[in-house]
Amino acid sequence: MPTDATTTDLHSSLAAVLGDRVAFEGPSLEATREDRSGQRSDAPPVAVVRAASVEDVQALMRIASATRTPVVPRGAGTGLAGGAMSSRGSIVLDVSGMDRILELDAVDELAVVEPGVLNGDLDAAAREHGLWYAPDPASRAISSIGGNIATNAGGLLCAKYGVTRESVLGLGVVLADGSLLRTGHRTVKGVTGYDLTALVTGSEGTLGVIVEATVRLRPIVRGAVETVAAAFPDVESAGAAVGGVAAARVRPAILELIDPVGLARVAEHLGPAALAGTPLEDFAPGETFLLAQLDAGDAADEAEVVARVFADAGGRVSRSTDAATGDRLLAVRRAMHPALASRGSVLIEDVAVPRSRLPEMFREIARIGERYEVEIPTLAHAGDGNLHPNFVFEGDEVPDRIWAAAGELFRAAVRLGGTLTGEHGVGVLKRRWLAEELGEPSVDLQRRIKAVFDPDGILNPGVIFAPEDGGDR
Amino acid sequence: MPTDATTTDLHSSLAAVLGDRVAFEGPSLEATREDRSGQRSDAPPVAVVRAASVEDVQALMRIASATRTPVVPRGAGTGLAGGAMSSRGSIVLDVSGMDRILELDAVDELAVVEPGVLNGDLDAAAREHGLWYAPDPASRAISSIGGNIATNAGGLLCAKYGVTRESVLGLGVVLADGSLLRTGHRTVKGVTGYDLTALVTGSEGTLGVIVEATVRLRPIVRGAVETVAAAFPDVESAGAAVGGVAAARVRPAILELIDPVGLARVAEHLGPAALAGTPLEDFAPGETFLLAQLDAGDAADEAEVVARVFADAGGRVSRSTDAATGDRLLAVRRAMHPALASRGSVLIEDVAVPRSRLPEMFREIARIGERYEVEIPTLAHAGDGNLHPNFVFEGDEVPDRIWAAAGELFRAAVRLGGTLTGEHGVGVLKRRWLAEELGEPSVDLQRRIKAVFDPDGILNPGVIFAPEDGGDR
Repeated sequence: MPTDATTTDLHSSLAAVLGDRVAFEGPSLEATREDRSGQRSDAPPVAVVRAASVEDVQALMRIASATRTPVVPRGAGTGLAGGAMSSRGSIVLDVSGMDRILELDAVDELAVVEPGVLNGDLDAAAREHGLWYAPDPASRAISSIGGNIATNAGGLLCAKYGVTRESVLGLGVVLADGSLLRTGHRTVKGVTGYDLTALVTGSEGTLGVIVEATVRLRPIVRGAVETVAAAFPDVESAGAAVGGVAAARVRPAILELIDPVGLARVAEHLGPAALAGTPLEDFAPGETFLLAQLDAGDAADEAEVVARVFADAGGRVSRSTDAATGDRLLAVRRAMHPALASRGSVLIEDVAVPRSRLPEMFREIARIGERYEVEIPTLAHAGDGNLHPNFVFEGDEVPDRIWAAAGELFRAAVRLGGTLTGEHGVGVLKRRWLAEELGEPSVDLQRRIKAVFDPDGILNPGVIFAPEDGGDR
Repeated sequence: MPTDATTTDLHSSLAAVLGDRVAFEGPSLEATREDRSGQRSDAPPVAVVRAASVEDVQALMRIASATRTPVVPRGAGTGLAGGAMSSRGSIVLDVSGMDRILELDAVDELAVVEPGVLNGDLDAAAREHGLWYAPDPASRAISSIGGNIATNAGGLLCAKYGVTRESVLGLGVVLADGSLLRTGHRTVKGVTGYDLTALVTGSEGTLGVIVEATVRLRPIVRGAVETVAAAFPDVESAGAAVGGVAAARVRPAILELIDPVGLARVAEHLGPAALAGTPLEDFAPGETFLLAQLDAGDAADEAEVVARVFADAGGRVSRSTDAATGDRLLAVRRAMHPALASRGSVLIEDVAVPRSRLPEMFREIARIGERYEVEIPTLAHAGDGNLHPNFVFEGDEVPDRIWAAAGELFRAAVRLGGTLTGEHGVGVLKRRWLAEELGEPSVDLQRRIKAVFDPDGILNPGVIFAPEDGGDR
């Protein structure tokens, strides 16, 4: 914690170098206490710097390094794990204003972007050239590429089209000392030295500040998208259908599951009119919803197979090729979060298990829900085994009982061969379970890797790793 | 360098712990002086350990750590950059005997393998379940998964199906101190902590010894494979065709190019009968060969587009759907290395440039060939911009003039936005150009990452990074 004298020095250094891009008070400071996790940090930062250029970021990091001031890099602020929230005594480095698409090369099928570019904006720009940007977190309209890379964001399409890491070719990263590191290439292949691009991807702002990214684009998938949706009598039969799709060697673009508790909340929220004409029209308590979308040249054949697998597993199936119906069914899935948020604060968990263990994981969720006497409505990206069990509670603070239930969820997922976070990141919210998944030796190794990049520990301290002194953030 | 006394200690420790799995003399030591790069190391190792288990690897690393003895991990010995050749005073750790497929899970579409499993054997085992293993170095019949992962091996299908890294879900890695680190998960998604799986992938045995890998399998691609081949009047027009395919938003599974010098050598080697009925039947000096294969549901439509693009660019085109013709045309491409090897020793280089820069890179190759008065027959994975310029020479040692020419090639590739090695790795052969591509600060950072894993520098010293003392290996 800086003394008053050094605080004054820090203020004057920041003001001298960054001018009106730094704020020491006002609502912009308070706003950085939150992300989309529903949590709130203990304190506002000492300053918010709205960087306009790589040079701004470098200048800030040099000042922070000289004064040992913690820096929290922040993009659109849509994170779900508390990885970009202010902490006491820190400077929040807001890069959301660095939002230019610097280059879009249609022949090499890549774009060079600043970190604040919104995922959806990049995708829209690519589509003008017959290309698209595949990583599709559900937040793509509001989340930025820098944050997507910092968390190695996932989404709905990952089983078929890969996670964010698979689309990142190279990065510009400002290190703790203010130096600019360039990683990777403009090529798909390249094995000169260690894969620092992949190491920084998913590092949640703890190794450096992403100031530029070279990302792959892909040719737009041609042809009609086929949608197959079904209501199943229970989670077990829907889980069997997921396994059946894999066994039939079909890999859908999208395969989303909503469990009975979640489905009940969605149905209440949307009302009967929204469900008319879908397999959920005659929705009965206890039913589970499964939605598949198939694309590319094999879509029609694959939809046929999926529809048969769903029916064989006991599903009440509807199949459609028109985009409007597909969108309407996807809207049911998208209504999950609003349906829960309308009832209270929502803690969205993010475990992943191998696809074959989904039925077991759903049994664990039911068991934990009963034990802690709490509803756990759950959505799953079933194609890749990523589940979002949700907890709804009152107020700003997650009750201890819910954290205890979440801890059991994490342990169950790890025991089944999975992970405590599939796509949201560890942030500050899940760091206390880190060693349970990775083991102490791996955590220790990773802390030492961080120290190579950031010897003074000023980059996003408390994120991923608990503070060494055991203090809280 | 150990003294005689410590050498005796080392011998007795190894013999006591590893029994008949260690050899101190005989042809197995001499054999480790070579890989497939055509180079030969200065000296045999002091011992070769043929590990039969993870415990063997751990035991060896504990002894090596205690005695500060360098260890060179080695799989099938098919590397092309000298990354697994013996060095003076080292122990070669041969894991090729650890070759069991431990598990093949058809529902979760993954396999757990020991490092010595041959790539082709894993693929064959997967195909019995309707799955395949996508990473396909041209050496897949003889190269092992451990080595593929250690070099992040590429191949022909990478533009469409990704490099090795994209298929590795998790690793078992024995560190320098003999401890076993487990990274990753059995899921496609997972963002708990840093991506150590990706960091170890491509690290060429310098961070740890890969003793187990969990890899993704994919559903076999359905439908007929379409082949489109063409002879072009020159490299420029073939390069334009490559750009045209990208502009048409088609991503072939395979897109291979052979330049005029290479084509002349292949044609001489194969003889006219092998080319009869192909676009190379009327092959004229100066012509360039381009071979595309299209798969999956859109193959027929895409082949139509590719054939039109090739013809518009001046190609003499043939198109076929029968597998025999496709295999015959691929055999022309596969004949490149044997054709060159029949004329002398071959140094295979491995630069990559953005696809749009291929014509410029070919002009650079021609310029360098003229300047150094050397033929540079070149093969390219044109879809991902990875070129293999070849140098043919007499004897065991690459002449300085050829290294000088290769150095200019590397610089040209980096200048065009690419890399000095697309898929073979740095090994000992390319380490002297490392800083020219990465810059000294990045090299320094990477050395410090290595030191986190391997504080005494016993893991494959001299590979990727030149020895700190400036000594040669």
